[in-house]
Amino acid sequence: MKVLLVYAHPEPKSLNGSLKDFAVKRLEAAGHQVRVSDLYAMNWKASLDADDSPGRPADSRFNPSLDSKRAFEEGRQSQDIALEQEKLLWADAVILQFPLWWFSMPAILKGWVERVYAYGFAYGVGEHSDARWGNRYGEGTLAGKRAMLIVTAGGWESHYSPRGINGPIDDVLFPIQHGVLFYPGFDVLPPFVIYRTSRMDEDRFSTTCDALGQRLDDLWKTAPIPFRPQNAGAYDIPQLTLRAEITSDQSGFAAHVRWSERDAPSEASKSYANP
Amino acid sequence: MKVLLVYAHPEPKSLNGSLKDFAVKRLEAAGHQVRVSDLYAMNWKASLDADDSPGRPADSRFNPSLDSKRAFEEGRQSQDIALEQEKLLWADAVILQFPLWWFSMPAILKGWVERVYAYGFAYGVGEHSDARWGNRYGEGTLAGKRAMLIVTAGGWESHYSPRGINGPIDDVLFPIQHGVLFYPGFDVLPPFVIYRTSRMDEDRFSTTCDALGQRLDDLWKTAPIPFRPQNAGAYDIPQLTLRAEITSDQSGFAAHVRWSERDAPSEASKSYANP
Repeated sequence: MKVLLVYAHPEPKSLNGSLKDFAVKRLEAAGHQVRVSDLYAMNWKASLDADDSPGRPADSRFNPSLDSKRAFEEGRQSQDIALEQEKLLWADAVILQFPLWWFSMPAILKGWVERVYAYGFAYGVGEHSDARWGNRYGEGTLAGKRAMLIVTAGGWESHYSPRGINGPIDDVLFPIQHGVLFYPGFDVLPPFVIYRTSRMDEDRFSTTCDALGQRLDDLWKTAPIPFRPQNAGAYDIPQLTLRAEITSDQSGFAAHVRWSERDAPSEASKSYANP
Repeated sequence: MKVLLVYAHPEPKSLNGSLKDFAVKRLEAAGHQVRVSDLYAMNWKASLDADDSPGRPADSRFNPSLDSKRAFEEGRQSQDIALEQEKLLWADAVILQFPLWWFSMPAILKGWVERVYAYGFAYGVGEHSDARWGNRYGEGTLAGKRAMLIVTAGGWESHYSPRGINGPIDDVLFPIQHGVLFYPGFDVLPPFVIYRTSRMDEDRFSTTCDALGQRLDDLWKTAPIPFRPQNAGAYDIPQLTLRAEITSDQSGFAAHVRWSERDAPSEASKSYANP
């Protein structure tokens, strides 16, 4: 299979750099083809701006969304953007690997999402009307592919537990896993999260690699997070709120995950990180 | 009073640009001093890297956190970083204004946070031990100042409602309001959110400006979101989980907001956006 690893850390000799090298080797040893987008090494342009839509009338207002649409349709996108889109289309699975900085991905990776996720490619796909709100959240250009996060965090696991001060890790990652990955169609696997990175010795690094290696070996076997698809009946359209009969007592991020009936009562405390 | 507006949109003639101009005028007309960090106009460097800590040994590993600490302590930070820190110290109130792109702030603003929020300035402040976990979440360098978000979103308000498909706006913004603003000490005011930005005509723009103007007039009167301070007894240290007696039936982001006893039973559906 083909795996794209999008990697965002400025120091090759960091924990993240070592884990990236380990992941590439493990995947290649299993016979997969691997491509790496090492954003810092590529000097990736982080900020979306008018230069991303070359050839637009110089005196016109720049509209990030509409100019992205026109550039994508007319084949006028920046070369670096088009190349990343090609890699996404090539891949069977995409891994985003990054340190959690201020409870989200590093700016350089956020800018990869903003620039590569063009209108017509990752959003604005399919029919948009009051009866159908596009192919997204479970459908879209990247449907049928798998995605997974590898995330390092300085804080302790308890700080990201259901009652931890930073918020539950599932909720912290929801805007990425649901909003960035499920949105254009990916099946999103549970994330691989490493906590308390300042306390990493050789033994723990070895244990961590074993666990990560297992996750990589299981990339095509692991059950995805059961996010609810937008267009399969769970949502009223165009309001896009959960229909009254769907977990009617629930709200918030967790309500958009469809656990089995059996699990439903304990849903609030259920986590999908590091299963 | 003194207001810093940190603004992230690439097009001056956009809705965001017009709202920014309106906000500056309204604040100045009320007698406040206003400084604007217009990140796109400043060509702000978005990606945190070793160049942000000039003077470090060339052959050493770059450690984003420790190199930030040393550069801050030794006065070796990049000039652009030091200047933004000076603006933050100068201000009585800070407004972050941005379009919601992929359920978070634009990369250029995320990179402002990552680079300006140095170790020793915005984190790693105060005593760190197993009994005391630093001055953060309600305490810190920026305590006593107010902060507020002005956010535009393409989606409908219902899409960000308690059962909306994108997740509740309070939860979408929690990593920013709690994790970026409350963390170094800001009192965080309810956000000003404008939905469905593609449907903005003159009438709606005028109504929107009226509402925003009122929020700016009330900048020193509006009650902050009652996030729970870390060091006032609600959390066990060092686990940093809510103590058993604190809203024991709750988990998730909302549990870190201290609504009044009277409001507690309906906490799950309470929102602080656009009050």
